[in-house]
Amino acid sequence: MNHGLFITIEGPEGAGKTTIINMLTSRLVSEGLEVVATREPGGIEIAEQIREVILNKENTAMDARTEALLYAAARRQHLVEKVAPALKQGKIIICDRFIDSSLAYQGHARGLGIEEVLTINQFAIENMMPQLTLYFDLAPEIGLQRINRHSGREVNRLDLETIEFHRKVREGYLLLAERFSGRIARIDASRPLEQVFNEAEGKIKDAISIHRP
Amino acid sequence: MNHGLFITIEGPEGAGKTTIINMLTSRLVSEGLEVVATREPGGIEIAEQIREVILNKENTAMDARTEALLYAAARRQHLVEKVAPALKQGKIIICDRFIDSSLAYQGHARGLGIEEVLTINQFAIENMMPQLTLYFDLAPEIGLQRINRHSGREVNRLDLETIEFHRKVREGYLLLAERFSGRIARIDASRPLEQVFNEAEGKIKDAISIHRP
Repeated sequence: MNHGLFITIEGPEGAGKTTIINMLTSRLVSEGLEVVATREPGGIEIAEQIREVILNKENTAMDARTEALLYAAARRQHLVEKVAPALKQGKIIICDRFIDSSLAYQGHARGLGIEEVLTINQFAIENMMPQLTLYFDLAPEIGLQRINRHSGREVNRLDLETIEFHRKVREGYLLLAERFSGRIARIDASRPLEQVFNEAEGKIKDAISIHRP
Repeated sequence: MNHGLFITIEGPEGAGKTTIINMLTSRLVSEGLEVVATREPGGIEIAEQIREVILNKENTAMDARTEALLYAAARRQHLVEKVAPALKQGKIIICDRFIDSSLAYQGHARGLGIEEVLTINQFAIENMMPQLTLYFDLAPEIGLQRINRHSGREVNRLDLETIEFHRKVREGYLLLAERFSGRIARIDASRPLEQVFNEAEGKIKDAISIHRP
């Protein structure tokens, strides 16, 4: 029986995460691998309810620590109900954003502290850390330009943060990539899509050969 | 200007917490002190929404860690919106259940670990620990008998746990009372109400003289 493989995808909006996840999923499936592509809250009812509290526009009084705890709670439930069972079945999970988003956005950019946000997330995920994280690195200026060019994509709350905030997010991701260098692969997402995809595919193939020998 | 004083009340159902909190509040108010009696979620809209997710009967798939994170999130918001402002105004806060409930019920009795549940709650409350915690100690058999005698009181989910679970909760509280002996005062709640009240009042008067000299 194959071991499951847990892969997470990180990076700013505009870095092409969604497109590349779709391409990676198609490629792996075409090679006969069982792949589950997901993102929190991932259709998990309890996680959706938590997400509603986080995103409720009336909740302007929400404290940053309350928000971080709610993200960790939704993460836990999605992990328990969706990721863990798929891993147990030996599938490859590709999850759009996971623990590193909380560390970069809330821990570093919002100033709660990477250590502190890591602590509550370790409680949430226990030992279920991803084996591989692809971090699509991109200067925020380029990411925002790309979003503006995509007329179909709705502008969300995070897009409206200042460029300074997005620089802090990138700084956070780069700190994480250094700290967790065995897990996080930094991929230069400023290059043409095909090159980015090829590098991402290569990293995943390496991980498959290591973790599912 | 007076300093605020943050007091929490702990113990099982049936120990007389509600009655004693009402008596303590009346007494302190009659002496000219400003008192806020509260309990989570305490009418705080965001905390109420979180509470709804926790208590939703459809959410049978809820993982114990998700639940612990949600309690910590609701606690944070109630603390920020209600407890902290009242403390800043120099008031005495009497809060029915707080961090020690999570530690005793979820950390010890549910087996998540006191250390682990303490960690996420420290994230939630930062340095805002109560100065005094009154723990009304009672054998679970007596607590449950008292609840059964009160015809007006609805039986809730926790009442239906096994006596073994309630014994573990008590064991957890006693561990906490030993560990945080400077903060937690254990009060024997098997005695007549008047005696229990007198001891509780004495502890609070002591805390007032220490913390609000």
